[in-house]
Parts: sequence; structure tokens; C-alpha cells
Amino acid sequence: MIGGSIVTDILNRKENGYESWLAYLPKSEVTKSNYKPFLKNIVLPKKDSVVVNSSKEELLRGISSMFQVELTISTVFEGTSNIVLATADDLEQVDGLIDTDKVAQLNSEGYLMKSVPESDSIIILGKTDKGILYGTFHLLRLLQTESSLQNIDIVENPRNQIRMLNEWDNMDGSVERGYSGNSLFFEDNRFVRDWDRIKDYARMLSSSGLNAVAFNNVNVHEVESKLITPEFLPDVAKVADIFRAYGIKTYLSINYASPIELGGLDTADPLDENVRNWWKEKVKEIYEYIPDFGGVVVKADSEHRPGPFTYGRNHADGSNMLAEAFEPFGGIVFWRCFVYNCLQDWRDRSTDRARAAYDHFKPLDGEFNDNVVLQIKNGPMDFQVREGVSPLFGAMPKTNQVLEFQVAQEYTGQQRHLCYLIPQWKEILDFDTYAQGEGTPIKSVVDGSKFPYTYCGITAVSNSGNDENWTGHTLAQANLYGYGRLTWNPELSSEEITDEWVKMTFGTDPVVVKEVSEMLLGSWRTYENYTSPLGVGWMVNPNHHYGPNVDGYEYDRWGTYHFADWKGIGVDRTVATGTGYAGQYFPENAEMYENVDTCPDELLLFFHHVPYTHKLKSGKTVIQHIYDTHFEGVEEAEELKSRWSSLEGKIPPMIFQGVLERFEHQVEHSKEWRDIINTYFYRKSGIADEKNRKIY
Amino acid sequence: MIGGSIVTDILNRKENGYESWLAYLPKSEVTKSNYKPFLKNIVLPKKDSVVVNSSKEELLRGISSMFQVELTISTVFEGTSNIVLATADDLEQVDGLIDTDKVAQLNSEGYLMKSVPESDSIIILGKTDKGILYGTFHLLRLLQTESSLQNIDIVENPRNQIRMLNEWDNMDGSVERGYSGNSLFFEDNRFVRDWDRIKDYARMLSSSGLNAVAFNNVNVHEVESKLITPEFLPDVAKVADIFRAYGIKTYLSINYASPIELGGLDTADPLDENVRNWWKEKVKEIYEYIPDFGGVVVKADSEHRPGPFTYGRNHADGSNMLAEAFEPFGGIVFWRCFVYNCLQDWRDRSTDRARAAYDHFKPLDGEFNDNVVLQIKNGPMDFQVREGVSPLFGAMPKTNQVLEFQVAQEYTGQQRHLCYLIPQWKEILDFDTYAQGEGTPIKSVVDGSKFPYTYCGITAVSNSGNDENWTGHTLAQANLYGYGRLTWNPELSSEEITDEWVKMTFGTDPVVVKEVSEMLLGSWRTYENYTSPLGVGWMVNPNHHYGPNVDGYEYDRWGTYHFADWKGIGVDRTVATGTGYAGQYFPENAEMYENVDTCPDELLLFFHHVPYTHKLKSGKTVIQHIYDTHFEGVEEAEELKSRWSSLEGKIPPMIFQGVLERFEHQVEHSKEWRDIINTYFYRKSGIADEKNRKIY
Repeated sequence: MIGGSIVTDILNRKENGYESWLAYLPKSEVTKSNYKPFLKNIVLPKKDSVVVNSSKEELLRGISSMFQVELTISTVFEGTSNIVLATADDLEQVDGLIDTDKVAQLNSEGYLMKSVPESDSIIILGKTDKGILYGTFHLLRLLQTESSLQNIDIVENPRNQIRMLNEWDNMDGSVERGYSGNSLFFEDNRFVRDWDRIKDYARMLSSSGLNAVAFNNVNVHEVESKLITPEFLPDVAKVADIFRAYGIKTYLSINYASPIELGGLDTADPLDENVRNWWKEKVKEIYEYIPDFGGVVVKADSEHRPGPFTYGRNHADGSNMLAEAFEPFGGIVFWRCFVYNCLQDWRDRSTDRARAAYDHFKPLDGEFNDNVVLQIKNGPMDFQVREGVSPLFGAMPKTNQVLEFQVAQEYTGQQRHLCYLIPQWKEILDFDTYAQGEGTPIKSVVDGSKFPYTYCGITAVSNSGNDENWTGHTLAQANLYGYGRLTWNPELSSEEITDEWVKMTFGTDPVVVKEVSEMLLGSWRTYENYTSPLGVGWMVNPNHHYGPNVDGYEYDRWGTYHFADWKGIGVDRTVATGTGYAGQYFPENAEMYENVDTCPDELLLFFHHVPYTHKLKSGKTVIQHIYDTHFEGVEEAEELKSRWSSLEGKIPPMIFQGVLERFEHQVEHSKEWRDIINTYFYRKSGIADEKNRKIY
Repeated sequence: MIGGSIVTDILNRKENGYESWLAYLPKSEVTKSNYKPFLKNIVLPKKDSVVVNSSKEELLRGISSMFQVELTISTVFEGTSNIVLATADDLEQVDGLIDTDKVAQLNSEGYLMKSVPESDSIIILGKTDKGILYGTFHLLRLLQTESSLQNIDIVENPRNQIRMLNEWDNMDGSVERGYSGNSLFFEDNRFVRDWDRIKDYARMLSSSGLNAVAFNNVNVHEVESKLITPEFLPDVAKVADIFRAYGIKTYLSINYASPIELGGLDTADPLDENVRNWWKEKVKEIYEYIPDFGGVVVKADSEHRPGPFTYGRNHADGSNMLAEAFEPFGGIVFWRCFVYNCLQDWRDRSTDRARAAYDHFKPLDGEFNDNVVLQIKNGPMDFQVREGVSPLFGAMPKTNQVLEFQVAQEYTGQQRHLCYLIPQWKEILDFDTYAQGEGTPIKSVVDGSKFPYTYCGITAVSNSGNDENWTGHTLAQANLYGYGRLTWNPELSSEEITDEWVKMTFGTDPVVVKEVSEMLLGSWRTYENYTSPLGVGWMVNPNHHYGPNVDGYEYDRWGTYHFADWKGIGVDRTVATGTGYAGQYFPENAEMYENVDTCPDELLLFFHHVPYTHKLKSGKTVIQHIYDTHFEGVEEAEELKSRWSSLEGKIPPMIFQGVLERFEHQVEHSKEWRDIINTYFYRKSGIADEKNRKIY
């Protein structure tokens, strides 16, 4: 599936997954006849905006592809069959057709969509140009999914202000934790010249609802440090131009030691006047190239990256110094909270990596500038298939927060296994922090509705690269799409998002929709079943993090242990007898996790060290649960493969074959997981499987 | 210790270990006065030989450095104080002073040394020039170690015909499994230009008794494949010139697929006429550049290297084809027996990597040409700190064999830990195979005294590189020196070799000699104590093989398992219930290993799976043995450090400091080994240490 010349690629785009959920698959004659009345003319009062132009282009492309209709374009509403793309400034165009109260409900990215049955017309009215774009994609989605255009009366505002992706791309063309080829942005230490591909990427992101991208790795190496210099800023500006046309702001990850490495200073001390001035000049220079530059992402004092600790300063000192430089331009500083001791001694049980972010940042609440945003991974460890949520959410009422997910499947099958993460993210977003008593779910923290944040929202590590189909595993596109949709509206159900994606990508054949949807929806649980059990995490091969290795990190420096012995397993993170991590949550959750009887099964080993014979709420012992889930996980992986096989002929052959090969690998690799995990625990516990299945 | 400019290096050579055991340390006045009578004139009847010239140069250098005496040179014996360097052709020079019967006992590399007290003279008489060189180094060794020159009457022949080193150097300058800097031969995909350093290396090797070097890695990659082409043969010839002057033959490792990669053929099938002709022409070409080229080393069908299996041929087909090409020129083909399935399934207990070499090669006995030599690693696995010996020794009476050791400390501390391997090699050489009944030790197999081999001897992977002191750890020089000495004479005791090396390297101070000798002699056991127990092997981190990782290879494809569970540990290699490997030995050994009661403790887990509570011959249980040895090993490492510290002032400061730093690391790292191994087995067995020491 991967490779081939550019000519082949373009010819194959309809077939190889490149078109993704924007394939705009041709509709049947019956469907066409239902929609044809609406599809004649675009009313476009405002023509000089790049964003509106993108909307128009997309609409022309989509309608032409699905319905083989070439729309006409006018500046005013004429007769019937109009699709109106207007902003609130163009209200006179739709006089009397729009409820002005509803217009007042729109935020700067929101839109109205309203059908006008009497004239077979659709009005999309954005508060600004961006609203038109999002509304256009919404309309196209309705057409793609063959939803009714009758009686539409929608007011849509994105729930999250920041809806972002972090690309971990390096300028040598590699992608850190990238599982779908190389960078879309860089090769050979310069920018790629395939700007068209970046534009297609922008279309995908925008269509899913995203509005921000930081396109270089948070680990900023030597060449990448120079992205904020005149050597590369003209190219950064070109990328920003492309993204801007799709409503997306451009950010960069920066090297905290830039004043030394670029500026020739002998320090990067945030309180040093020369350093502060250097950054001010530097930021001014960036905005000369990109007047609407979004800001920067900073990984400081983390995993050997430089930061303020070097100078005896704290994270507030470090981030505020940068924030001051960005403040005049409206730029934001994303400051990552992934700070922990990565040189831990496994013999020292008093140190708990899970505690680190809270311990580092909670005491600083209120000390950060208004344009600093703390970027907090969903869990306290590192994007495991299952872990608790970060106790920082809701714990810093005076500090802007964004939640960070990982769309890249670093620990969840690396896009060789199917692992659809929307259900996981839903659980996290819906998790009640109790920060303001019952009813303070994480989604209400990060959308800013509970605290007076200046900036907030959701960001995530991207899963895309220059593979033909963007994400390696074509079904992994669903994670990217779904991520965007969730950031726009966390209330969408997993089922709704899945249904949209399948229909947009593969069409509306009910068999395909049912099978692929069910496959996606159950795949996270399947992956969890055959990998590390009950929330304990890790058990992967060091460094590349692929495949089972129960003791892979057990005696290592990374603070990631399971403490399995002949009697039991798990990490005691209770306040009473453990590391005290459970106490970092608000009392309701702290108590739930503290008590082994109320701690949910799926996180039992994250919070407690228990005997293998401990009975779960399911009634099974821990050891039997391990055996059962691992046997079941493989059976489920086999079922995924056979369900996919049953779709042959209903899926474009190249995609079908590529995905089938991945399922074949998944089945084999899930057996490796099953057998190593089961053998490990059987060898350690000496407790036989009740069902006498084969354990080596 | 490592680094510094070339100028500094040369200035520091007396101080940084560069001069190795050829430092020729200045002697005290008392010592000088004892030897001065002998040190006046060299009698050199034959002047036109490069080897004799090397002998003369070395003698001048050594005497000058130790005694500050500049010897005169004459062609005839004159008066008193003559050191005669003659060959059997020059017998008239020493008429009446030499017993001609003894001359007849010399082989082509042997020599006589005889003192003539009445004229304070020493006669060194080689059968050929090479004998003069070895005799000269012998004389210098006597002077270095301050041995008496009175009443010397020695006949020395090397016991092994082939005394070889395999350098695993790549042309990019790296050294596979190299722990002492980069290559002495290559950098940046060409030859180095520091030919002087290669000459000094040749002096070291020759002084220890070696006579053969293959100086590129047995894994022959793309560039290295071209070493046998006119692009590089002129440089190979230069290296051969340097080695030749020190009695050393030059060999190369070759790529079995050369006919394809260099010759443009579409096959490397050994029975293909074009392939056979290609090799014949190729070998002819090599000999045009190097008329006394030694031959080639071949790693074929091993660890993804190409070989005859690709064409459905066997190892005899593959090696004989090459041997035919080399036969007219007297060249040898070393064919490595390190052939096994490296894609094993850990779940399949019927496959045993230990069996592989015997299973592959034993059936082919008698099918190999006379100039093929099978190169057999000392053990059936891969240079572990302890494993059984290869059952192939003595099992192929009709097939030339060389024994392969590893001087490079891949699995024995990587030259960061002290691990003096002479005692290990002695045990192996002395191991009685019973191939011809009692009294058929391995040394008698590989020296050709038991079977009518055309070629035989010993080879080893080198431990040297371009670090200032050649071997990273200065004390690791002792392994290189001792290896050479053992190949010359396997009857030398570890103590004799150690005593020589310490005195030659650090002088004759009795405190230094006693301390360093004892440190060296006990260090293998110390390393074994704190690493993998009772012969089970492995338990190292994958790939780089450094540091403890008990399950590192346990679920991997490399066939290297310990099968530890809650009850016990070890690999059942018995005939009765296991893989049958034990049955590959001759009956006496097969029975010894088969029976758990007669199997030696130190190999117990190599041959048997036993409960942790199994009582060793020492009276300890297996688990208590593990705990005890690991605690003891660390104590011994600490003692090594403190003993070395006590020598401050008696060792050149740069060497002292460099070695001290390595001991400091060794102590810390031995604790890591101790704690991980002990914790692993405590967690698994649940059996507490009888002495209640700290297990994490």
C-alpha cells in the first residue's frame, strides 16, 4: 500500500485512502434525485476572503464529486436552489429568513444553518468567515451521510476555543512516534515542496473542526531551533498561509535554550534582562513574517530538555517570560506539564512518577500570565491504554489549561493494530473531577465553562504522516476525524462520530456502516484485553514501545513499574500505605480510588497492589481476569479480521488489502501479547487457568 | 582517558597505556648491572629479511629503553656479550654452541634460545626468520620480567599452527562489539592513514605469539564487500606488508554473495559454474596484490547473512567451492559454525539453539576440502560468562577445526568491568572431550595432535580499538596478551601468563605484581558471581548485551531462555526429558551432564531445570546460591576497587585514574546486577534470603 510514484498516487487517490473522509463518494441516482433540488447555485456575497474562498472551493468540489453537478455562483439570493454562504455582515442577503436572536448566540467560529423549504435553499451564516467554512463542511457532511436537508435549523458553536494538533515532526523528515511514514512538512532538514499535500491536510483538519496546529516536534533539536529565524520563517509563513485559508492558526514548538543557541547569549535564565529582551525581539521578528502567528509550545525541564530549572527558576518564571514577549501580539505559550524525574531508581518506592505533574504545577496556581496555557496529558503517566485521569484538571482554577490527547497510537498498537480511541477520550472528557462538586467533568474544565480561563481547550499528538493514506492504518483516520469532532463538541457520542466517519469514508451501505462501526467501537477494549491488564500500564518493549515486555521497564529509570511478584501485582498509590497519589484528586475521587472496594476494576492495579487471588467486582480473581481477557482479546482480534474479510468487494481494493494485512498482523501480534502475558503471570503465580487453556 | 590530540597521545604513550606490555620500562641500577654483561652487540648474519629487521629493531628499542644501552651490530660472533639472531642456515656462526638434534626439533616458527655463559652471550636460533622474531620477543620478556639469563637452554615451538585474531571492524570506523573506541584500520569508509599504529599493533600481536589476523568484520556489509576489489586491495596489501614484517598473515572476511554484489551474476550458488569461475578469478586477483594472502573468513547462512542454503546447498558445497579457488595459492577458508535458527518461537521448546552447530556440521564430517577449516565458538551458545563447551570439538575427526574465543568482552563486562578470561580459556582448553577416550582435551584436538588435520589452531574476536590504550580498560590488555600466549602454549598456567603481563606492563614491584595478579585471576569468578547464575547465561539487555535484564531474551526469537517460574529455573537439555543436547557429547561427558547429580554446579542450569530448593554440591539451595553469589560478587567488586586504589603512586597516574573510574562504575553496575537478579528471583520464588540481606 505504501510507496509508488507521485503520478500513481494521484491516480489512486480515490482508491488508496488519500481522499480520507473527504472522498465525496459519488451518490446513487436515487440519492441524487433527493438532493438535486438544493444543488444549483451558491450565493456568495463576500468574495475576497481566503477562508470563504476555501468554503466555496470545497463546496464545488464536494457537490461535483458526489452529484456531478457544477454549481453556479452569484452574489445575491436568486429564486430557488441557493446555498447561501454569508456572514452576519451580509444579513440583508437573507433578510427575514434568519432569526437575529440566534445570530447573537454565535461566537467567532460559530454558524447557523437553516433550510428554506419554500425555495429549496440552505443558508449558512457564520459570525465570521470561519463560521462559513465550518458550516460548509457541516453541509457537506450532511450530504455525505445522506442526512435530510429538510427543516434544518441549527446553531453551532465550537465548545472548545482551542482545538489543536501537535505534529511531532523533525526537520530530517522523521516523525517522533510517527507510524505513517515521514513528515508532511519536512525532509532533508528543509521544508517539503509538496505544499498541495499540506493544503489537503488543512482541509481534513478544518473539516473535522480543528483550528490550531503546531507542526514541529516538542523535542526541538538543533535544526528545528532555527525555525524561528529568518532562515526558515519565510517557509513557516507559507505553511501558515495554507492553514489560514482553512481557519487554522500556526504554532511552533521552540527550544527553551534558544537565547543561547540562536542568540549567542551565555544563559537562558528567564529572569535575565538580556534573555527577556532577546525573546521580545525574536517574537517581534516572528510576527513580521506571520502577523497572526498563534504562539509556541514548550517542553521544558522534561526528559533532558532545557528549561528554567537550570537557573533555579520555576515553571511560572519560565513561561511568563515568554508570555510577556508574546502578549503584545496576542500569542499564546503552551507550557507542557509532562515534567517528571526520568532518572528514577527502581529500588526507591517513595518516588511516584504519577505524582509529578501535580506536585510540580499545582503550587504555582495563580502565578501564570494570562496568555500561558498549561498543556496537561490526559493521564498522569503517558498515554497508556488505560490510566487514571490527570488530577491537575480542575485543580488549578486560576491557570489556563488544555487537555492533551495522543491520536498517534504510541502505546495503543502504533497504527498496526486497530484501536479506536474516541470511547477512551469520551470517558476522560466525561470524568467528573468534582472540582466544583458533582458535575464538573473534565470537558467542562477544559472548555472554560467552570473557570474564568482566558485560553483553554484540547490538543493532541497527531497520527498523520506522508503515507498515501495519511495514517498508515486507514481505519486510524477515524481517530483523527473523531478527535476533531470531539474537540468541537464533546457531547457527540462515539456512535454518532463513528457513523459519520464510516459513511463519509466508505459510503452508506448499511452492512459496511454496521460492521466497520462496531469494529471501531469495540477495538479499544479488545486492545486493552490482550495487553497490559487492569490499568497497570507499560509492559511494552523499551524505547519503541511496541509489543509485549512485561519487565521491559520494571527495573529501569523511567518510573514505570508493576511490582509483580509471586503473590500479587500493582502499584500502591493510596494515601494510607502507598505513594499518596490517590490523594491528589478531589475528595470524592480520592476516596473512591483509595478504597480497594470502590476503586473501579479497570484501574485496580493502577492504585492498589493486590494478590492474584483478589476478587474483582466482576467476581473473577485478578489472575483469572488476566487469563480470560487475554484469550478473549485474541478471539476478538480474530473476529476483527474475519469481519473485515467479509467486506471484500464493498471497500476499495487497495484499502481493503492494506487494512487486511494489518489485521493479519494484529491477530499474530495479539497472540504474542496473550502468550507472553499469560506465561509471565502463570510462571510467576503458579496459578493455573481455570479453563485449562494453553499457557506456555 | 580517552581522546586528546595526536601530539598529546605520542607524548603520553609511556603514561597512557599505549605502550602496553611493550613499554620496556627502565630498569633499576641493580637490575641493569645484572644484565649489562650480556648487552653489547647483536650478531645478525642475515640482514635482508623484514622479519629479522623487525627483530633487530625491537631488540634495539627494548634494550635501549630498559637499560639505556645502544647495542652494536655485527654479522659475526665476536668476543663476548653477543646476542645472536640466526636461522638454521647460519649454523656455522654458532658452531659447536648448539645441539643440532635440537635444531631438528624446530618447526617453521620455532626457535632455540641458549645462553653461553663463558662469553656472556645469548643465541637465538630460529628454524626460519619467524623463529628469530619470536625468540627475540622471548628474550625481551625475560629481561622485562627480570628472569635469569644464566643456563638458558630452551626449545620453543608454537603448539598451535594457526594463532589468529578476528577484528570485527567495519569500514565506517565502527567496531561490532567493540568497546575501546573505533577501528584501527578504517574510518569514513576508507583505510586509516595511521599506518604506524597498525605497526605497533602488529608488534603487540607478534610479541604475544599470534600469526594471523582477519581485519574486517565477519558481518560483511556493502562497502566491506569491496575489500577484495582493486578499489581497496592496494590498501589491504599495505596492511599485509606491515603484518608480514611481524610474522602475521593477513586474511579478510568476505561476503558470500560477492558474485552477485561485485560480479553482477544473478546467483551465488556454489555449484554454478559461473560462480566457481568468478571466485577463481577473484582469488587470483587477490594474490596478485598479496602473494602470501592467508585466506578468508566466512559467516554464511547465519543471522541473516547469505550462504549456500539459499540455493539448497550445504556448508560443504559452499566452503569447498571457495576452497578450490584458494587451493592453488595455499589459502585457507575459515567457515564459521555459528549457524542457528535466529527466528525461533519461544513457545516451541523442542528447538534448542545449543544443538544447532553440531546438528548442522557433524553429519558433514569428511566432506570438506583440506583447506577448509571449521571455526567453532568455544561454547554452543555465544561467549557467555559460563556455558558448556561445543560438542563439535573432537566430533569431526576428518575436518579441520579452529576454536574461536572472544577476547572482546561482549557478555563479560564490555571492558568496563574487569573480567580476565585466561582462567576461562584454560578450563575450556583443558576440557577432556573423550574423543579418543580419556585424555583428549580440547587443546589436543585443535592443536592437531589427535587428528590428522591439515590446518588447525585457535582464533578469537579481538578486544582492541583506537582508544589510546587499545582496549578501553587498560587491564583488558591482559586478555589480549594472554590470549596470544595461550595459543602459543596452552600448557602455560594462568598464573604464569598473569605474572608476565603484570611485570611487563607495570614493572616488577612485588606489591603491584601480587595485587594486580590476584585481581586479574579472581575477576572472572567475580563477574560470574553477580551476573547470570549457574551457567544459564543471557539475562542481559537485548542488542547491546550490557547490563542485567533477566527476561531480556526470554520471550524473544534468539533461542536463549531460562524458563524461570515460581518453582524453579533452567533448561532441560537432557536426552531423557529435554532437548537431547547433552547427548551430543562423547559418552563420558554426556552421562555426566545428563545426570543432575553428576552435572557440575556451575553448569547445572545449562543442562537441567531444577527447583529453587534443589541442593547444589556446595550444600546450598539454588536460590540461596543465587543470593549469596550476588551479594559476594558486589563485595568482590568493591574489593577490586579498593585494592586498585591502594596502588596509587605505583601505577602511571593516567592509567591509574582511568582504571579507577572503571572500577567505580563496576561497583555501581554490579549492584544493579545484584539487585535486579536477586529481586527478580525473590519476587518469583517468594523464598527469602536466609541471611536477611536487603532484597528490594
